[in-house]
Amino acid sequence: MILINGQPETMLQVADRGLQYGDGLFETIPFRHGHLEYLTEHKERLLRGCERLQIDFNEMAALQRELDIVCKQVSGDGVIKIILTRGSGGRGYKPPKDSIPQRIISFHPLPDYPITHQSGITLQLCSTRLAKNPLLAGIKHLNRLEQVIARNEWDSADIAEGLMLNYDDELIEGTMSNVFLVSDGCLLTPNLSDGGIEGIMRQQVLGLACTLDIPHEIVTLTLDDLYQADEVFVTNSLIRIWPVIALHGTNKKWSHGDITKKIQKALDTAES
Amino acid sequence: MILINGQPETMLQVADRGLQYGDGLFETIPFRHGHLEYLTEHKERLLRGCERLQIDFNEMAALQRELDIVCKQVSGDGVIKIILTRGSGGRGYKPPKDSIPQRIISFHPLPDYPITHQSGITLQLCSTRLAKNPLLAGIKHLNRLEQVIARNEWDSADIAEGLMLNYDDELIEGTMSNVFLVSDGCLLTPNLSDGGIEGIMRQQVLGLACTLDIPHEIVTLTLDDLYQADEVFVTNSLIRIWPVIALHGTNKKWSHGDITKKIQKALDTAES
Repeated sequence: MILINGQPETMLQVADRGLQYGDGLFETIPFRHGHLEYLTEHKERLLRGCERLQIDFNEMAALQRELDIVCKQVSGDGVIKIILTRGSGGRGYKPPKDSIPQRIISFHPLPDYPITHQSGITLQLCSTRLAKNPLLAGIKHLNRLEQVIARNEWDSADIAEGLMLNYDDELIEGTMSNVFLVSDGCLLTPNLSDGGIEGIMRQQVLGLACTLDIPHEIVTLTLDDLYQADEVFVTNSLIRIWPVIALHGTNKKWSHGDITKKIQKALDTAES
Repeated sequence: MILINGQPETMLQVADRGLQYGDGLFETIPFRHGHLEYLTEHKERLLRGCERLQIDFNEMAALQRELDIVCKQVSGDGVIKIILTRGSGGRGYKPPKDSIPQRIISFHPLPDYPITHQSGITLQLCSTRLAKNPLLAGIKHLNRLEQVIARNEWDSADIAEGLMLNYDDELIEGTMSNVFLVSDGCLLTPNLSDGGIEGIMRQQVLGLACTLDIPHEIVTLTLDDLYQADEVFVTNSLIRIWPVIALHGTNKKWSHGDITKKIQKALDTAES
């Protein structure tokens, strides 16, 4: 099921700048037990993205109505993806003053990740690097070729996620997730001011660390920090938390540790 | 007029990865006096892009047939834009093995740039910076948010183009063009291994510099080099060569110099 500006559609104008230039944003929101999880946070990030890309979007009320329509029509759990493009027009790259942002809402089944991922996954270290790009860091924009190429590095179903460094050898994120390390009892996650998406689940985990009195810090991290970490996990809205227990192609193992478990438990409680 | 895989269409599947992730490439080719200029070179760059993005594209013959159809149906000069996406499908960022690349050909009027641009334009220095991104450098991919945001920095019709630096203060390119400096009789253009598009016209100009025995070099350039240059010009397939005669917001002026004129003349001769 797809709605474009509230109308059932499966096609978009070729002239749309979302296709022409990747000129837009997206959000991927789990729909479970009849509600959209962390919807407010997803909407806030979408608006931050609009501000950064200078997309003049005033139709959040319409978007909400359309989300309600989709949620009422579907049966069972799934994922709602919102794509918001700047719309059509303009002379080359120059955005037109009168472009009308396009709201595209689609519903998809939840990915069938193995349940065992909740207690531990194997991570790949990607050779594809992320550019340092403060202009686009943090927001969930449609320019995702780096992630596409990184994710194309492996085929094996035994590898659940790939970790990406930037060209300065700093650990940034997974191809579709944020990464956390636990080191000497302290929860660490990379600073994303130069690259990476500020995940909604990342924000929740940092919030829970406050609540649970777990020391935590947003820092610059390297591969050494990863190797020396006591616990490692990755997060996103759909997977929530996957503990990392092995690094593909190496002997490196981590345990599904206490702090990870504590945060997983608190997250389940907060959501229930 | 738009053809998608040879069929008249104005809409593309929302599921197409070109929209979802900017997962594709494009070419913009002038159609003048009944033929597509530098078509071979544009096709070669498209194939280089496919190789870099690991898009399995074997339909160049079909694309050529479709270009022929479009060229036969249109009247007068214009621009043909080719968009080639990876196609639909895949689980998240992972490209599916069986995706079918989509060929989108559209025809547009030639932009109505003032004829005076041929003898000199005013350039803006953009505050938007380009990320250093060897992975995507050189090719003409669909992830163009940096250019969109840079081009959005000015409205004035008096400014014809904006020049972009990377975060290391290196001069890279215009928002829609490549840049050349003439310094002490030597033609200089930025090294694009970390960013920027390898323009077809840039390649032609470098070729003409060989033919004309003009010393030339692909180098790292900075703002100082720009300020100290004797001549400056920008190039792309549509505009060919625009001499730069002023830098907006500064007193800096350049003349429409002899080497620029010599290359413009040789280019006109080569094309006639």
